[in-house]
Amino acid sequence: MRKILVIGAGKSTAVLIKYFQDKSITENLFITIGDISVENAKNLANDHPNTKAILLDVFDQTSRQNAIQDADIVVSMLPARFHIEVAKDCLTFNKCMVTASYVSKEMQELDTEVREKGLIFMNEIGVDPGIDHMSAMQVIDRIRNQGGKIILFESFTGGLVAPESDTNLWNYKFTWNPRNVVVAGQGGAAEFLQEGTYKYIPYHKLFRRTEFLEVEGYGRFEAYANRNSLKYQSIYGLEDILTLYRGTIRRVGFSRAWNTFVQLGMTADDYTIMNSEHMSYRDFTNSFLAYSPSDSVELKLRHYLKIDQDDIMWDKLLELDLFNPNKKIGIPNATPAQGLQKILMDKWTLDDGDKDMIVMYHKFGYEFNGQQKQIDATMVSTGEDQTYTAMARTVGLPVAMATLRILNKQISLTGVQIPIHEEVYAPILKELEEYGIIFKEKERDYLGYNPDGVKG
Amino acid sequence: MRKILVIGAGKSTAVLIKYFQDKSITENLFITIGDISVENAKNLANDHPNTKAILLDVFDQTSRQNAIQDADIVVSMLPARFHIEVAKDCLTFNKCMVTASYVSKEMQELDTEVREKGLIFMNEIGVDPGIDHMSAMQVIDRIRNQGGKIILFESFTGGLVAPESDTNLWNYKFTWNPRNVVVAGQGGAAEFLQEGTYKYIPYHKLFRRTEFLEVEGYGRFEAYANRNSLKYQSIYGLEDILTLYRGTIRRVGFSRAWNTFVQLGMTADDYTIMNSEHMSYRDFTNSFLAYSPSDSVELKLRHYLKIDQDDIMWDKLLELDLFNPNKKIGIPNATPAQGLQKILMDKWTLDDGDKDMIVMYHKFGYEFNGQQKQIDATMVSTGEDQTYTAMARTVGLPVAMATLRILNKQISLTGVQIPIHEEVYAPILKELEEYGIIFKEKERDYLGYNPDGVKG
Repeated sequence: MRKILVIGAGKSTAVLIKYFQDKSITENLFITIGDISVENAKNLANDHPNTKAILLDVFDQTSRQNAIQDADIVVSMLPARFHIEVAKDCLTFNKCMVTASYVSKEMQELDTEVREKGLIFMNEIGVDPGIDHMSAMQVIDRIRNQGGKIILFESFTGGLVAPESDTNLWNYKFTWNPRNVVVAGQGGAAEFLQEGTYKYIPYHKLFRRTEFLEVEGYGRFEAYANRNSLKYQSIYGLEDILTLYRGTIRRVGFSRAWNTFVQLGMTADDYTIMNSEHMSYRDFTNSFLAYSPSDSVELKLRHYLKIDQDDIMWDKLLELDLFNPNKKIGIPNATPAQGLQKILMDKWTLDDGDKDMIVMYHKFGYEFNGQQKQIDATMVSTGEDQTYTAMARTVGLPVAMATLRILNKQISLTGVQIPIHEEVYAPILKELEEYGIIFKEKERDYLGYNPDGVKG
Repeated sequence: MRKILVIGAGKSTAVLIKYFQDKSITENLFITIGDISVENAKNLANDHPNTKAILLDVFDQTSRQNAIQDADIVVSMLPARFHIEVAKDCLTFNKCMVTASYVSKEMQELDTEVREKGLIFMNEIGVDPGIDHMSAMQVIDRIRNQGGKIILFESFTGGLVAPESDTNLWNYKFTWNPRNVVVAGQGGAAEFLQEGTYKYIPYHKLFRRTEFLEVEGYGRFEAYANRNSLKYQSIYGLEDILTLYRGTIRRVGFSRAWNTFVQLGMTADDYTIMNSEHMSYRDFTNSFLAYSPSDSVELKLRHYLKIDQDDIMWDKLLELDLFNPNKKIGIPNATPAQGLQKILMDKWTLDDGDKDMIVMYHKFGYEFNGQQKQIDATMVSTGEDQTYTAMARTVGLPVAMATLRILNKQISLTGVQIPIHEEVYAPILKELEEYGIIFKEKERDYLGYNPDGVKG
């Protein structure tokens, strides 16, 4: 039996475990699930004969090292900052490792040692990062191999609520870590390339500079810029590219309404609010508005942000109970972001029957035989329920597939890697199609940022 | 002869040195000016018989300690972060010390030791902090001594260009460190109290929530909120106060136009711009605007920030040459703030004959015998030339006066102090009047934030 150790029994692990269990007979696998809560691990193990649940505290060196030493390969589904402890042990005990997280500086520093030992530490092989890398590189490599030159790459991903569970005015519910949604975009300007020019959007303008995307069968979406588009230039080998832009997908209208919170200062996470615990939602909102002896919180907000009386944005704020004088924030020393998250979680938490949805959209512009062309590739994946979510599926499946392929020595790469090489992405993308994770490609005229060839 | 060591021969030191020199015979003073540039120190010494200039590198322990050991009292006019080295030596060699800077955490930690040795380290005794503390506490103490209860304290200071040198559309020139002006207000929300309610303004709204101030003989000003108003609650003993607000004074219209830079993201200092060295001012401006194949940088900016064609703000931008395709930023790896500072320095640098001006405005609201009252106190000080500036005078004189009074044992306090005690502020404010630094007080009806007693 080949022994797979999965560390961390979080939300995204269910599909991953099921994949291994389903193949445990044919592939001769035994799965050990280690978590700080053995209860969580047991739930995921689900009494499957080829699976056991163990208590694993990643900070307890002995239990961690015993588990790793006993495994043939290690999957770390822990929060990203904890991978490094696991990685060092994997190096010590000569085990390959797989994570869905961005390669940290510390992880990258292990590259030479990992390579020298003939091991592979595969990272960024979830959905974003993960499926985005693989699906993008497949098209980029194909265009290049045919002799084309990439001049535009735009890539967008969103974790959303599925249309059948889309029941609020924001067309949004939390399908992943709510905190990440509340503070999204903070920490520096969004930097990207448009037609050869570097562009910068400060945080407070991010949600006003969206662009629209159409996905056949799903209608219109919008996207705001991610902070880190430029780093993909070297990762994907796009040094001569004119347009490089990565963004986050929301339903149309979300960003304009979200901008209300940004403008008020409600998304700030760098200071705490006085008396936050006993504040009502109305007090909380009022603390971002000037004092008035006479005017209502409502009118002050409308006037401050110039929201017309018939603007649908207003109904979105009302839907969140932003002006409720009775509901309490209830968190001591809350930052504005924590207060806002509390308010949003009342309304944006998935109901029992709700399903989530992952949407991905790539645009590839290229020159071939003197002509400019464009390929758009889109993928939509909808969750089954609250265990087998689209998020858990799109994160868990590529991690599981990569793990099995490494175990089966079907990947020859060594070192600290991300899935941008054909020998990794091609078979995994193909296998993902069996699970309904399919990219639809469409050839179209090159649109770029000057679709009509307008001159000034 | 009593020996005064002044470390740091910067812009604000000229008036300070002259004060000591003018009193060197009557007070029996010898002044040593130590600076990393002996040239600077010599210029300030100005061949005065009771003054010598020495080379003093604050990081060279030997020369620093020799100079401090040789002095009877030490004035540090260095940038704030360098005081602590001087302070530790002063403690070692039992010397009192004076600075115009905010008390740092490290400085505060010396308090017990300084006190035990019977020394005083007087800080925050320039203009802001300094004259603001003294002039505010004088009125606050007087109201309290008469049995009044302070319910409102607002305090505003601005370093501006004098009316006779006010020659641009912004009514502003750099009279102090330009960098501080460009990044002013960054690093967290402005926090303050209005009629008992804590209020928070995020940076990107700071310059749109100004209030107006009238100063007799000087017309109208405006002020935007400082970040740190609340800390004055404990420093001034204003625990029960309803309104507490500190702000920075500009001429009317400055803030609305400055907001253009904030909205564009040009004041950001946390990342660098690609190719900044070879960028024109126009390229720089364009990097904060979306790409367009046809539209001008001008129209894109107007549309983005919704600036009407007849808005005077536009002329302010033109005056700065923001759209000039020929002038270069010329700074490698510049942050947006550094790029903007370069553009502003072309236009906002003081000309040879230009004079600066310091404006201070306090509002004190209080209850006395069941009545609500208000006192407004204002001070305007105009510079003589570019050496004896208003800034150098209002910073240098109180530092010099405090130094001499400590030397003459006219201050009984010990420990790490700021000038909020009557024995410090009363004689210094009185002496400052001889130098034309005079607060004009005006009794008025209590206005607070509800001047008309409006109910909702």
